[in-house]
Amino acid sequence: MNFELNKSLEILERTPLILERMVNGLSEEWVISNEGDNTWNTVEIIGHLIHGEKTDWIPRILIILNDENEKTFEVFNMEGHKEEIESKRTAELLDEFKALRIENIRVLRYLDLTDDDLNKTGLHPVFGEVTLRQLLSTWTVHDLTHISQISRIMAKQYREEIGPWIEFFNLIK
Amino acid sequence: MNFELNKSLEILERTPLILERMVNGLSEEWVISNEGDNTWNTVEIIGHLIHGEKTDWIPRILIILNDENEKTFEVFNMEGHKEEIESKRTAELLDEFKALRIENIRVLRYLDLTDDDLNKTGLHPVFGEVTLRQLLSTWTVHDLTHISQISRIMAKQYREEIGPWIEFFNLIK
Repeated sequence: MNFELNKSLEILERTPLILERMVNGLSEEWVISNEGDNTWNTVEIIGHLIHGEKTDWIPRILIILNDENEKTFEVFNMEGHKEEIESKRTAELLDEFKALRIENIRVLRYLDLTDDDLNKTGLHPVFGEVTLRQLLSTWTVHDLTHISQISRIMAKQYREEIGPWIEFFNLIK
Repeated sequence: MNFELNKSLEILERTPLILERMVNGLSEEWVISNEGDNTWNTVEIIGHLIHGEKTDWIPRILIILNDENEKTFEVFNMEGHKEEIESKRTAELLDEFKALRIENIRVLRYLDLTDDDLNKTGLHPVFGEVTLRQLLSTWTVHDLTHISQISRIMAKQYREEIGPWIEFFNLIK
């Protein structure tokens, strides 16, 4: 598939609603379990998504579109979720993510991006020059991979419970 | 985590609603794309889930619980989805899966399974003896891995669109 703004918006709009259905009201054990040392649990992933809404996607879009000389994105803080989730309930985090995403999509629509805009570039701290089209594609992929990850994390919690069937589930081996 | 019926029900009940939010109203391209040769697209996965509701989980549970001598499960047809999806729209398939799952959960609750029941066994055509506890755990894991798969399939459609960011996304490389 080629990037199209409307096709990305279909995904970006759905993500908070999908997460709500996946996570809201689940037993604590499903959402606080992770995949082992140095992996995130579902709550941490939601915190990471919140931190991205605040500091990553829209700020980088605006750096690309503005006319200033400084085109380098700020480094994204991969520990930023820790502060986001501190002393918050999961339901609150889901609501916060949803509200931030609604607002960010409102901004994105307001920008009314042209094909020319999509070809504009910023400087990624690791990769160097990247286009707005690539950034928006990455935002979309980022949502989808974290949804995939959350469902995989949950599946792994029953790894020992399925007995010989583990043979059929390479994803959680 | 150890298997608990209520914790499995939390997942089993959610799956049709999650799929509805993930898929309903999406552009055709998102749902008919797959991961390459001999892989399924989202519509085929929903057909596979429908076929499982009809021929796999509940029938096997009933084989385990009944007092007859024949304890061997029928082989599951991995091509069964083809007939299920033929000339049906995606929204219809989602509705059908939801209706079947609601009915199957009704049956599952009606059975009012005891710990003794969960230790009862059937004969899997490949693995031999398996317990009801393992079967119910597998049903749960099966839902979660297919949700994970659907989200990964969609993410992969933008693999070429994210440019250098592919480095950060092992899941879709």
